[in-house]
Amino acid sequence: MVNKGERMQFEKVIRRQRMTRRYEGRPVPRETLDRILAAAQKAPSAGFSQGIAMVVLEGEETDLFWKLTMPKIKWEPDARPWAVVIPLASKKAYLDRYSEPDKAKAGMQTEENWPVPYWQIDCAFASMIVLLSATAEGLGCWFFGIFRGQEELMKELGIPDEFEPIGAMTIGHPAKEDFRSPSLKRGRKPFDDFVHRGRW
Amino acid sequence: MVNKGERMQFEKVIRRQRMTRRYEGRPVPRETLDRILAAAQKAPSAGFSQGIAMVVLEGEETDLFWKLTMPKIKWEPDARPWAVVIPLASKKAYLDRYSEPDKAKAGMQTEENWPVPYWQIDCAFASMIVLLSATAEGLGCWFFGIFRGQEELMKELGIPDEFEPIGAMTIGHPAKEDFRSPSLKRGRKPFDDFVHRGRW
Repeated sequence: MVNKGERMQFEKVIRRQRMTRRYEGRPVPRETLDRILAAAQKAPSAGFSQGIAMVVLEGEETDLFWKLTMPKIKWEPDARPWAVVIPLASKKAYLDRYSEPDKAKAGMQTEENWPVPYWQIDCAFASMIVLLSATAEGLGCWFFGIFRGQEELMKELGIPDEFEPIGAMTIGHPAKEDFRSPSLKRGRKPFDDFVHRGRW
Repeated sequence: MVNKGERMQFEKVIRRQRMTRRYEGRPVPRETLDRILAAAQKAPSAGFSQGIAMVVLEGEETDLFWKLTMPKIKWEPDARPWAVVIPLASKKAYLDRYSEPDKAKAGMQTEENWPVPYWQIDCAFASMIVLLSATAEGLGCWFFGIFRGQEELMKELGIPDEFEPIGAMTIGHPAKEDFRSPSLKRGRKPFDDFVHRGRW
C-alpha cells in the first residue's frame, strides 16, 4: 500500500515548510488559494463539529488587517504577502454539537468539562494544513498571533461573536531573501528530547 | 518553483487522511515511526519554544494506555493499533521562553497575557503532521481526546508535571473494513460556509 514516491514528495513538503516573512508582492491565483483552503477543510474535528471558518483577505483587502493589528509595519510594496488568512474557531459550535442526543451523555455541554479547547485544536489542525498546502504550491506562509486590534478587526470584518481567531497566516510568493526569526538561533532540540519511547 | 507532481502527491495525502479506527495488529517498523515523528518535530512553535514532546508506546506497551483511558475497550487482537502517540505540551516552556530578554517586552510571562494557549496550538500543529505523515506512509491514524485516567497515565509514564497531553493518536496498518464515525452522517458543511472572502 505504501507509495514510496508519494511519501518522499510529502517529506519534501515537510522539509521545505517554514515561516516565510518576506514575499514578492505579486498575486496568488484565486484557484491556488481555493485549493489550499479546500485542503484545510479536510482537517478532522471533534464530533465532526466543523466549528472552524477562514476569512481570506487578498491584495488591498489586507490593508485593514495590517493597519489594525500591526500599525507599525510598513511593507515594502514588493515584500507584502498577497493574502492573509484568519483561522477562526467557534466554541459555541462544539458545545452545541455535544449537546445533541448522540453526544449528550459525554457531559460536555459546558466548557469546564472539556479537558482541552478542541475548537482551538481543530482550528490549529486546519491551519497546519494551510501552511503545508501553501508550501506544496511553491508558496511561502507565516503563522503568527494577533496581539492588538483584534476586537476592531473582528467588528470591521463582520465576524460573528461566536468565532475567535487563533492567529493569522500570510500567503504569498517567497522573496529570494527572507528575514529569518532570530529565535532560530536557539537551535532545534535533539530528537531524543522530543520523542520518548515506552515512557518518559 | 511549483512542482506539479509534488503538489498532486500532497493533495492525495490530504484526501486520503481520515480518522482510522480499525487496524491490522501487525507491527509498524520503528524506522517508519521515526520518520513520522521526525516530520512532526518540524512543526512551527511560538518563539521557537519547542515546548512539545511525544511519548510513543508500541505493541504491548499500549496495554497500560488502553487499560487506564478506555477500560471498556476490548481490541480484537487483529484490530489493535500498533502504536499510541501521546502529544504533550508544556505551558511552562512557553512562559519561560517569553521571559527571556529578547521576548520579555511582549509581556507574556504569565498565562493571562496569551490570547490563545500557543503551547496547545503548537502541539496540535505537530499532531496534524503525525496524522498526515502516517497517511503518507500508507498507515492509518486516529486522534482522540483523553477523557479518563489521564492523571494516573501521566504518573505511570513518568511524564514531568509541566507537560499535559492534548489527546492521543493511534498508528497502525488500516484494516480492510473500518468503523467510521457516526458523526460523519452530519455531512460536511459547504465550502462557502467555511471560507469567507474579504469579510464574513
